[in-house]
Parts: sequence; structure tokens; C-alpha cells
Amino acid sequence: NHHSLAVIPGDGIGHEVVSEALRVLQHVQQISGRFQLDVQHFDWSCQYYLRHGRMMPEDGLSTLSGFEAIFLGAVGFPTVPDHVSLWGLLLPIRRGFDQYVNLRPVKILQGIESPLRRYKAGDINFVVVRENTEGEYSNIGGALRPGTPDEVVIQNSVFTRKGTERVMRWAFELARTSRKRLTAATKSNGLNYSMPFWDEVFRQVGREYPDVDQSLYHVDALASYFVTRPESFDVVVASNLFGDILTDLGGAIQGGLGLAASANINPDRRFPSMFEPVHGSAPDIAGKNIANPVAQLWTAKLMLDHLGYPEEGQWILDAIEATLLAGIKTPDLGGTATTHSFTDAVLSRLPA
Amino acid sequence: NHHSLAVIPGDGIGHEVVSEALRVLQHVQQISGRFQLDVQHFDWSCQYYLRHGRMMPEDGLSTLSGFEAIFLGAVGFPTVPDHVSLWGLLLPIRRGFDQYVNLRPVKILQGIESPLRRYKAGDINFVVVRENTEGEYSNIGGALRPGTPDEVVIQNSVFTRKGTERVMRWAFELARTSRKRLTAATKSNGLNYSMPFWDEVFRQVGREYPDVDQSLYHVDALASYFVTRPESFDVVVASNLFGDILTDLGGAIQGGLGLAASANINPDRRFPSMFEPVHGSAPDIAGKNIANPVAQLWTAKLMLDHLGYPEEGQWILDAIEATLLAGIKTPDLGGTATTHSFTDAVLSRLPA
Ligand SMILES: CC(C)[C@H](C(=O)O)[C@@H](O)C(=O)O
Ligand SMILES: CC(C)[C@H](C(=O)O)[C@@H](O)C(=O)O
Repeated sequence: NHHSLAVIPGDGIGHEVVSEALRVLQHVQQISGRFQLDVQHFDWSCQYYLRHGRMMPEDGLSTLSGFEAIFLGAVGFPTVPDHVSLWGLLLPIRRGFDQYVNLRPVKILQGIESPLRRYKAGDINFVVVRENTEGEYSNIGGALRPGTPDEVVIQNSVFTRKGTERVMRWAFELARTSRKRLTAATKSNGLNYSMPFWDEVFRQVGREYPDVDQSLYHVDALASYFVTRPESFDVVVASNLFGDILTDLGGAIQGGLGLAASANINPDRRFPSMFEPVHGSAPDIAGKNIANPVAQLWTAKLMLDHLGYPEEGQWILDAIEATLLAGIKTPDLGGTATTHSFTDAVLSRLPA
Repeated sequence: NHHSLAVIPGDGIGHEVVSEALRVLQHVQQISGRFQLDVQHFDWSCQYYLRHGRMMPEDGLSTLSGFEAIFLGAVGFPTVPDHVSLWGLLLPIRRGFDQYVNLRPVKILQGIESPLRRYKAGDINFVVVRENTEGEYSNIGGALRPGTPDEVVIQNSVFTRKGTERVMRWAFELARTSRKRLTAATKSNGLNYSMPFWDEVFRQVGREYPDVDQSLYHVDALASYFVTRPESFDVVVASNLFGDILTDLGGAIQGGLGLAASANINPDRRFPSMFEPVHGSAPDIAGKNIANPVAQLWTAKLMLDHLGYPEEGQWILDAIEATLLAGIKTPDLGGTATTHSFTDAVLSRLPA
């Protein structure tokens, strides 16, 4: 089976971790024999922006639309404002390709020490389903009297029933195949238009899933529960912004952002899905061959899951855990491995 | 010196912890001899709502405006929707009295074990300055085609230059009297109208404080730093929503929400300031005499600071820490003390 894959390393450590992840994917492909990734590279990035005045060509989205999947590193560079680089590449892809599910696993891998005293490898294992196309990231707003003492700036969060329902239904379905527990992040006490609506849709869709245990927590409380009782979660569904915050926090409790993977999924497969780690481009450590490739490797696993090769995906995660358990770690985890040598160690632990 | 104090126990455990905190305040007042609190009680609450159809009388705010300070427990009850109870009492007070600074200390007290492995009492000690009158809590929004499949709900965040500048200036001034480090929570990469403005105001006000070390982090990253390097913060300034989320998280890392205090301050003192713990009314444990009174007691200390008696305020915090260090704790912290017996222990540790 052929699968067309657009690779966008992006900026900073994106280059290093993506090229290592491609080595692993290549290897898995050979061992498996069940699929072939037809890879094409794109240099769209802040570097590209500094040369061309835009993050990707005008027809970038339509170019990408011909691919089945997009494998992305990270976007962002100090000399380009974040809202320019992100709204010029990453966010238009998520929205333009209706990747309404952003799936982010939170799990303490074998060999990893969580900063949480009471938790060890295996104790925390849940996924966050983040709405990825609307809500707080609607890109709608403006300023009145800009630059004056009377300036008023408005940012609009736009929630639609369609957009809210579909991500909740996806999360309920996922919970059904998992430990049958779905938690929604709300803030209906403070955000008194969007979030009461969010709650209403959650309860309504929830009626179709009486077999799934359902709870709603305010996002502030939920953030604290990620620290005090993370073992109690199975699937967590959250709006775009809340999912963003909760998953970085998830990265922290699972042992570091260098470990956090993510999939931006277009469930109806009309458009490509995009796979990218939660971490950023980390310009401070870029080019030094010390970035942790785990997040990107785990992201490759999520991509294989999506393409229909969960068994092969599991090989990657198992090899990552075996490597970490052997004490082989990059400097962010207190080890001395390089990005490259860590990946070599993972490669050597794939099935023969 | 006489100070008029409006006491609103509110709902649930609010009653228990407020009455204990008043015992302590009474005692401190006697020992100090420097001030007298003229206390008046108000039963405004969800119970009040169920009887009268509103959370407080129509002239509630004007009644309160005659007081110097408001001492509040917690508001909320399962049979009243949160957005009704909060927008009927708590939030109108914060906004109506222009309490634009919500000050929330995050500190591991003596005798407390943080859930964070690497941190012990004293290792974490910072304050969050939360904007408290505008931003995401602007109470502006609405629904198009409500109840239909085409429903669209909009929630507006409104940021003003005046509102943003004043809270940042307050935070910079505080940092100046502290360890001279101010961190701002942003999300200018995703929320591309409000947060670039927030950043611009931060940088602009920051130019007046070259002696203060300044950093801006996206709120998602910042949430993860609360877990991975909380020792690096001194003063953190955040928008209304981000401050809300970060301070519940702060409560968790400092050992529990039962410990987290908060002051809603009107800095120009034209209106009363309000003092309330971060936790809610916890209906599940209400009336059992097991609620942890520490947050409310610490909140009483913040009130004494505000009224001009920081020395007396410190007595309370010292007595709390001495009590905890003696192993006297309520059940949420693994102890067997009751709300009342814990407070007795605190009383016995005040200066004679
Ligand atoms: C009860 C709720 C409206 C409130 C808030 O979000 O401000 C609470 O969470 C807090 O932090 O004081
Ligand atoms: C870079 C930024 C716009 C992005 C987001 O907020 O979605 C990132 O934080 C993420 O979580 O993927």
C-alpha cells in the first residue's frame, strides 16, 4: 500500500527530529513490508518566510491536499512573530483540512520519572481530544482606537454546534473503545456564553453513550486534577485553548515536553491529517544534535495508527520504551545521548 | 482604628471556614489592640437565590459599597447553575468594585508535602497577579440560531489598554519590592488579537521598570513550567482566564486547593476589596466539620495586609505553619483534625 506523505520539518529542532523519525519510519516500512510511504519534502518555515514574505506558497494548501498525511516538525523562529508564523502555516492547515480532532496522549513511559511524586511509569495513561478548528482560535477580532490610551481589543471565540458535537462524538466513541470514561473541560461559570453551550452539547451527545461514565470539570479544577489525580482520566475532551493548555501540562506530568506526541486528524479523510509533536522549535538548542526525538517518534507511531498500521506503530513505541528503560536518554532527561544516537538505539530495538 | 467588614459566608463549606477565620481574626484583634473590625453578616448565597430568585438584593452592591472590606467564603450549589450563581454575586462584586488585582500567593507552607517530587516546603514561593475585571470574563456574547443544528455561539474577550496597563503596572511595582522578576502569561501565537496587544502593553510598561527582569511565556508553556521549574517565578501577571487556570494549578503544586488564598483588590481604595479563598463551596463535604480552613485563614492574613496590619497578618500565617508542622491537619491533607480543632490549634499558636 502506497501512502503519500508531505514532510515539513519547519524550524529549529524540527529538522533534526523529523529526519531521525523518517529513518525510523523507513526501517519499520522495510521490516513490515505492508506499506510504502512516498515522501516529499517542503521547506516551508520561518526561513522560507524571511526569503519569500510568506510561510508557504499561496497555493500551499492545495499542494498539500493531494497528500494523505503531513508529517511536521515544529514552526517558529525568534525573528518572526509567533502569530505570523503560526497563522501562516500550522493553523491554516489544521483549519483548512478540517482536522477537528487533535489527539494527544499523556502517559508516563517506561524508564521515565514523572515530576509527580506519587506516580511512576504506567500510572498515568490517558488521551486528550482537543477541538482543533474553531472556538478560541477563530481568528476573529480587532482593535478600536489602536495605539491610543482608549484602545479596546476584542478577540472572539466562536463555537458551532456542528463543530462541538462532532469532536465530542469522536471523543465518546474513543472512550467506548477505551476505559469508558470521558471528562470534559468547561468553564461555564466564567465564560457564560460559550461554555454553557459546550456543556449542553456534551450532555446531549452524552445521552447517546449511557455506557460511558461522563464528567464535566471547570478547566481550572481540571488543571489541578492533572497534578493531584491524573490516574483518574481516560479520555478528556477540551476546547481548542483548554486543550492546548492541558496538553502542555500533560507533557510536563508525563516527564517533559520532549515526550509529548500529537495527531491532527481529519476523521472523514476528505483531507490529509497532520502529525506533529506538542513541543516547539526550541531555537536555543537547535542544530546541536541534542533535541529529544521521542515526541516526534511517538508522533510517527500515531501516524501509522491513522494509516492503518497500529501494529507497526506499537513497534516504535515499544522500542522507545525499551531504549529509555536501558537508560539511554537525551540531555533534557538527564542523559548524554544525542538525537542521532538515541534514534540508533531505538532502531536497534525494532523487531528484526 | 475601626474597619467595616461585610462578611458573606456564601454556600457549602463557606460557612464553616468563614466562622473559624472570624474566630482567629477576633483573637488577633484582641492581641494586637491596633484595630477593630466592625462585622456585619450577609446571607447572600444560592440558598438566598432559591428563596428570592436572586443571589443578592437589587441594591446589594450599593449596600456593600459602604464597607471597607468584604470577607467571602465560597459561592455555588448543585441546584443553581454556576453561571447564574457566580454572575449574580461574585463576579459583579469583582467588576463593580473595580477590584482589578486578584492576588494569589503560591507557596509550599511548612509541614506541607507538594505533589512535586523535587520540591519541599519553602522551595516554591511566588504570587500570581490576575487581572480581575475584563478580558475573557467580559460577559459579552450570544447565540445565533440557538437550539438548532446551525447554532453559533460567540463569547467575546475584551481587553482595554487602561485595564491591561494598570494591572501590569501594579505587578511591576510588586516585583520591585520582591525578587525583581516579572513573568507574563500570553498566548499571542493562537489568540492573535488580544494577546499580541497584551504583549505590547507588557513590553511598553516594562520599559519603565528596567530593574525588573521580564519574561513572556505562552500560557501552555507556563502551565508546564509551574510543574517543571516553579522555583523560577517571583511575580506572574496573567489575564483573567489564564490567571484563573494558573492559580488552581498553583494550588495543586503547593499541596492542595484547601491551602490557596486570594485577595481581590481595588488598589485606589475607592471601593471595598474582597477576600476569598481560591477553592469553591465543596457541597460534597459541607456541614461535616472537615473542610480545611487554611485557605480562608490565609485569606484573612491577606486582608490584614491590605488594611495595614501586615505584622498581625504574619502572626496568622506563622501560626498556620506551626500547626501544620506539628502534624495537625484536616483529612484532605491526610490528617484527622476537624475544621474547628485545626483552628483551635492555630489560635493556641498566636502570640500571647
Ligand atoms: C467561581 C469562578 C467564577 C471563579 C473564577 O473563575 O474566577 C473561581 O474559579 C476563582 O478562581 O475565583
Ligand atoms: C504554536 C501554537 C499556535 C500551538 C497551539 O496553540 O495550538 C501549540 O501550542 C500547540 O499546542 O500545538
